[in-house]
Amino acid sequence: MIKAAIVGFGNVGRFTFDAIMKAPDMELKFVVSSKDLDIPVPTVKSVDELKDIDVAILCLPSRKVPEVAEKLLSRGISTVDSYDIHSNIAEVRLRLDKIAKANGAKAIISAGWDPGSDSVVRALMLAMIPRGITYTNFGPGMSMGHTVAVKAIDGVKDALSMTIPAGSGVHRRMVYVELKDGADFETVAKAIKADDYFVHDETHVIEVDSVEALKDMGHGVNIFRKGVSGSTDNQRVEFNMSINNPALTAQIMVSSARAVLKQQPGCYTMIQIPPIDYLCGDTDELIRALV
Amino acid sequence: MIKAAIVGFGNVGRFTFDAIMKAPDMELKFVVSSKDLDIPVPTVKSVDELKDIDVAILCLPSRKVPEVAEKLLSRGISTVDSYDIHSNIAEVRLRLDKIAKANGAKAIISAGWDPGSDSVVRALMLAMIPRGITYTNFGPGMSMGHTVAVKAIDGVKDALSMTIPAGSGVHRRMVYVELKDGADFETVAKAIKADDYFVHDETHVIEVDSVEALKDMGHGVNIFRKGVSGSTDNQRVEFNMSINNPALTAQIMVSSARAVLKQQPGCYTMIQIPPIDYLCGDTDELIRALV
Repeated sequence: MIKAAIVGFGNVGRFTFDAIMKAPDMELKFVVSSKDLDIPVPTVKSVDELKDIDVAILCLPSRKVPEVAEKLLSRGISTVDSYDIHSNIAEVRLRLDKIAKANGAKAIISAGWDPGSDSVVRALMLAMIPRGITYTNFGPGMSMGHTVAVKAIDGVKDALSMTIPAGSGVHRRMVYVELKDGADFETVAKAIKADDYFVHDETHVIEVDSVEALKDMGHGVNIFRKGVSGSTDNQRVEFNMSINNPALTAQIMVSSARAVLKQQPGCYTMIQIPPIDYLCGDTDELIRALV
Repeated sequence: MIKAAIVGFGNVGRFTFDAIMKAPDMELKFVVSSKDLDIPVPTVKSVDELKDIDVAILCLPSRKVPEVAEKLLSRGISTVDSYDIHSNIAEVRLRLDKIAKANGAKAIISAGWDPGSDSVVRALMLAMIPRGITYTNFGPGMSMGHTVAVKAIDGVKDALSMTIPAGSGVHRRMVYVELKDGADFETVAKAIKADDYFVHDETHVIEVDSVEALKDMGHGVNIFRKGVSGSTDNQRVEFNMSINNPALTAQIMVSSARAVLKQQPGCYTMIQIPPIDYLCGDTDELIRALV
């Protein structure tokens, strides 16, 4: 049995709890959370208190991930995370890779759905069709980053930014706002549209009575590639998904917690992991079932 | 530069030639063919004449693949093939794995699209959604196995069996036949529908003047999985493709010829290979581009 810990118990942490409970080869030894939790598993306040575990699944905001991963890997504890700041992944991986190797630990970074399973799909599409264009179209679904940006704007009481796929990797932003007393809608809408997060996209701002009533954790993606295999044009592949966002992120991290222990010391992204390693069961039986 | 040989120069062999010519990191050293070929590469009659190559790409009918792969692996030459007899893959892999390990060679077996890239998609879907059902729907496209079965029936001069996806992994067979002089259509149609290849599927037999006029190497697949991530139901993922069949098979073998040399000695299916290994280029740059 793989001895796992969950670090952080927000939305993704709770879904990770569910996924570990359903995994036949894992047991949950600890949850790390500053809050008191009503769950049948020992809870500790800090990662410093973790011991006798094989892998820690980091369910933290991305900005906190590198520091906590470094701390655990330094102690020889393997980690999995869904770090999603795309522009920093390569550098964070190199830093964690050194620490992991020096301490005989293993890590999979950015093991969510994008980055994560979508990255694997893009790599596979490139192997099939080396020349051409891949478009990743997100949504419809809530964007956390964009929502946080709207909430920071003067006069906004609550907000939700939906990402709508407009094709060819272009996205429309539908922004729903609840205003503070006395705030002027036109001023708020103008400020949102001028924000760095929105200035390059088609953005619609809509005033609502209750943002809470709109919330839904569903999300989706469409990845499309058209191009050339060898010298043959018009090869088309497409990947679609309609999913509960934190549930899928959690499941991919749990599958990656299984995979990480099968690797050599170091830090990896999902495109560097053999897909069979995510799965529970005998190699030959998996080959018979899947290949 | 990876020194490659093509073994067999039928349809897939010709497309493999194209794909190697376009690969920036490969050079084609030999083609093995019993025919005289008008190509600017040394041609030899037998695999026994191959020397100084890193990898041989086997573009042979599946039934000939295991024997030729054994011969090459015994000599320490790595191989890639698109062996597609699903029920035997696990056993053939185990046999080749022993020979490869004993001779410091490497092999990827069943590196086409199904088995092959579809297998990778199915494995990834299972990692994302551990409980549920995956349906693989083939077509529309020609089925070689079914076509050969029809051609063996009395009174058939030429034939083509198209696989049409009917959903949920169920397929309709559209069989186009050219009859020999004096053959009775109803008798032939009845024999086709009673054949093992067709008896379990909805089969339509149609008489045509020219089978040649219907031939098209296009094919497709739809892989659909709906199931549970953690304890969250109704997670849906789907993979679609519309492709030239031999061109894609050839490209995947060529990408696998790159990947195979990065493995430890042994024989692997595609679900056992890190996806990044199929790709040309620097690890960190690929991570920046794809993850």
